[in-house]
Amino acid sequence: MSKKPLILVTNDDGITAPGIRTLIKVMNRIGDVVVVAPDSPQSGMGHAITIDDTLYCREEHIDNGPQKEYSTSGTPADCVKLAVHELLDRKPDLCVSGINHGSNSSINVIYSGTMSAAIEAGMEGIPAIGFSLLNYNWDADFGPTEQYIETICQNVLENGLQKGIILNVNFPSKAIKGTKICRQANANWVEKFDKRRSPMGRDYYWLTGEFINQDNGEDTDEWALEQGYVSVVPVQFDLTAHYYIQELNNWNLNG
Amino acid sequence: MSKKPLILVTNDDGITAPGIRTLIKVMNRIGDVVVVAPDSPQSGMGHAITIDDTLYCREEHIDNGPQKEYSTSGTPADCVKLAVHELLDRKPDLCVSGINHGSNSSINVIYSGTMSAAIEAGMEGIPAIGFSLLNYNWDADFGPTEQYIETICQNVLENGLQKGIILNVNFPSKAIKGTKICRQANANWVEKFDKRRSPMGRDYYWLTGEFINQDNGEDTDEWALEQGYVSVVPVQFDLTAHYYIQELNNWNLNG
Repeated sequence: MSKKPLILVTNDDGITAPGIRTLIKVMNRIGDVVVVAPDSPQSGMGHAITIDDTLYCREEHIDNGPQKEYSTSGTPADCVKLAVHELLDRKPDLCVSGINHGSNSSINVIYSGTMSAAIEAGMEGIPAIGFSLLNYNWDADFGPTEQYIETICQNVLENGLQKGIILNVNFPSKAIKGTKICRQANANWVEKFDKRRSPMGRDYYWLTGEFINQDNGEDTDEWALEQGYVSVVPVQFDLTAHYYIQELNNWNLNG
Repeated sequence: MSKKPLILVTNDDGITAPGIRTLIKVMNRIGDVVVVAPDSPQSGMGHAITIDDTLYCREEHIDNGPQKEYSTSGTPADCVKLAVHELLDRKPDLCVSGINHGSNSSINVIYSGTMSAAIEAGMEGIPAIGFSLLNYNWDADFGPTEQYIETICQNVLENGLQKGIILNVNFPSKAIKGTKICRQANANWVEKFDKRRSPMGRDYYWLTGEFINQDNGEDTDEWALEQGYVSVVPVQFDLTAHYYIQELNNWNLNG
């Protein structure tokens, strides 16, 4: 019998979130699971790391599963760094992050703690996938995602992922028709700030906003999700817009 | 006389950092300046946003310059959102972020609060540039950067930047030879955690690490900076690895 793969599981909603508990359950069918996740919700943390503060970490026993678990006081990216460089004996064969409660499709990938953990693992050379469900409710039904998660993870374990590639997988909240490989839709948030005055007389704001999809393409994640497909976007951490280098070389920047 | 451009200035080291004070001084030569910056250091915040907490903002008078200034309790990305959607009467013609105390070249762009503010502005359709100096000292000499910053900003104001492109500009800490348009080097951090025990008996960690440049290319930002050039990398927020979509289409993800 071949050795089981070592799978690192993390998220940004915190170690007790229903999404990560589902993901742990599915991963236990595939390999040896180690969970290193934030001890409290870290949504919207982007790719934040803890560089000027202490990082706490403790072992947890949350359910009776075979996995080993640790919670940390850090961000999702911190969790991956700590797992890889301190807690694990060997490099994991796979890192999965999520299942996030809410969308990380299109431009949301930029703000996503879930995806930052997966990207951090990708930077370490570990095949990595972020999973998200388009449902913010804490009691959302993650059941229909399980079979797709297992299939996608088995494919990544068998085929590998080219260095520098991370998968961003989003699940629709409606009945699932299948899977589509997509590009990130060109969409954005139009913010509205709700201005209030505190009982102490200080002005403060709540950030709210409306999501606007400006992209009509039928090859985008937003389109696939709208149609009831699971969207799979290959994401990279080389942010260089290579196609624009020639344009800039025409500028006179040396006075 | 033509109308002066409206320039939004922000950073991640906080509104009183010497880097942003230099940037404000240079921008006052070019346009009408509004500063919206964090009230305390936010380094390593990546593209974090404040979504479940209050955001404070107040007007500041830090020096006798002509600029208008606000500090906020938020992240660099929050500052840009608040500026564009609440504080400014019109869309700025340019957003500049920095000058960061320390490098945001190569993979550091992923963790950078300085660049997340510039990227947020780019997402709003505002031409945006992040500036960083490869010197972490609070009393670093920003003088040699001033002429280059002015030239780069004038070029962006005259030529514009294609929607979706943001410039990541890093200055060497040695004598400057000129400017190079570059790609992001393939480099990474190898983390080391310094494990300690608190007086109360809890284990905790400090994150430390060593920067490893694995990229020998002479078209990278790391190479340019090493040689004494200012590196200019065009950065994008479409994270899709378009070249990998065909590969994934060969996988069997629908079981």
